[in-house]
This record gives sequence, C-alpha cells and structure tokens, in this order.
Amino acid sequence: MNHIASIVLATTALGFAGTASAQFAKPEDAIKYRKNALFVMQQHYARIGAMVNGRVPFDAKLAADNAAVAESMSKLPWAAFGEGTDKGDTKAKPEIWKEPAKFKEGADKLQAEMAKLTAAAKTGNLDSVKAAFTATAGTCKACHDSYRAQ
Amino acid sequence: MNHIASIVLATTALGFAGTASAQFAKPEDAIKYRKNALFVMQQHYARIGAMVNGRVPFDAKLAADNAAVAESMSKLPWAAFGEGTDKGDTKAKPEIWKEPAKFKEGADKLQAEMAKLTAAAKTGNLDSVKAAFTATAGTCKACHDSYRAQ
Repeated sequence: MNHIASIVLATTALGFAGTASAQFAKPEDAIKYRKNALFVMQQHYARIGAMVNGRVPFDAKLAADNAAVAESMSKLPWAAFGEGTDKGDTKAKPEIWKEPAKFKEGADKLQAEMAKLTAAAKTGNLDSVKAAFTATAGTCKACHDSYRAQ
Repeated sequence: MNHIASIVLATTALGFAGTASAQFAKPEDAIKYRKNALFVMQQHYARIGAMVNGRVPFDAKLAADNAAVAESMSKLPWAAFGEGTDKGDTKAKPEIWKEPAKFKEGADKLQAEMAKLTAAAKTGNLDSVKAAFTATAGTCKACHDSYRAQ
C-alpha cells in the first residue's frame, strides 16, 4: 500500500562559507555528500516534473509532499562546497571558489524557488505548480551552466 | 562564519512496500537514492558521534541540528527497497525481500531511535545524547548484520 504521511521535521541550513573542513572528515566526503543530497533532491523534484509534463496524473498531495522533501534537500549541499573540495570526483568548476558570493546567490535562489514550489503545490493548482516548477528549473540550469562542467 | 539556522521543514515518509517501481524511473535510481540518503544521514549522525566520543567539544545546538537532519533522512531510504532493486550496485541481501515485515521493523526502529536522539540532543544533556546515540547505533548495526553484505 502506498501510504504517504507528511511529517513535519526539522532540518538544518548550514552556512556556506568555509565550514566544510570542520564538518567533513575528508574532502571526498564533502564531495560525495553534496552530490548525494542533490541527487535525492532531484529525484523528488523529478516526480513533480512528471506531473507537470503529463507523464503521470497530477496528484496535488503527492506533488506537495515531494516538493517539501526537495525543498528540504535544497538546503543541504552548499555547506559541502568548502575549501579543498574543488578536486576529485566532481564536476564543480573553479568559478565556485572564485566568485563565492555569486555562487551563494544562485544557491539561495534555488532554495527560494523551491519554497515557492512547495507553496504552489499546496494550492493544488496545476498551473501554479507548472509556473513554479519552471522557475525552479531555471535556477538549476543557471548554476549548472556557470558552475558545473559538462 | 558558521551560522546555523534551524528551519522547520516538511518531508515525506513514503510507505515501504512495493511503491518503488512507481517512484523511480529505473531500479538503479532507487539503489542510488537509498544509498545517497543513507550517506547524508550518516554524515550528520557521525557529527554527533564525534561529540559523543570526545573528538570534538559537545555543542548542544549543533548536536540537535544534526540529529534533526539525520532523523529527517532516516525516513527516506525505505521506499527505495522495492521489487527489482535487489540486483546491481548494492550490498542489499535477498533477506530484505524474503522477510519484508522484519526489515520494516528494523527501519521503523531506526526512525524511532533517531527521534529519541533528536529529543535527547534538545535537552542539551551529553549523557542523554550518549545513551540515545548508542541505542541508535544498535539499530544501524542490527540491520547491517542481517541485511547488508560485508
């Protein structure tokens, strides 16, 4: 049975700048952590995409639940872009560490759009979800274009 | 600056049995998802472990923040153990699908102990955190012993 329960939980937004070394035992852990958090985020986000694109029927409750998880996950990766995590199994471009304020701006924008997506999903209006989903996708793309190697 | 803000977020506990096929595009995605969610969980849990073991000073707020994220993450992996996800890049043992009720019991126990760990961390009492951390570790180990190949 596909029983879904919404559970209010607390998670943590860790500040971006310079904290990774204290939080991760090894740079590889930080790299793995941010990739893993982004993958989990993407999976939940993609479930809303499937509804937006008509591949699966729109289910407002399911969209809201998935948006909430994606929004939670969107807060986690940024603390893992600390010093020394630019080398290794990563597509992260040096620009991340050259222009940290601009990178943080992109990360903040994603989180803001994710919050709007959750709000839109809660209204149950598919057109609102479509608009918010597209705006969020724009923030993903903008950062990937600037900061992720192909 | 290591500024940490607790943010109340909603996440979703997706039921265990048989829902993975609907949620994941490919079995590989489900396998990757559960591993990634568990890794993110483990990283936050390990930060409490470092305090419990005296490797870093006890910081009640930081312990509570990390426990809250670990607790959130502990709810996610189980929906990704659906049918057809027993083969591939995974250490999952066939017993998971042979005794789903027992496996679910273990997953539920972990989540319950994680909730207790969050509660203990919120008291700010290190002895309580130590006791809850150890109880949680017991649930990790029990499942790994039964259900994860070495």
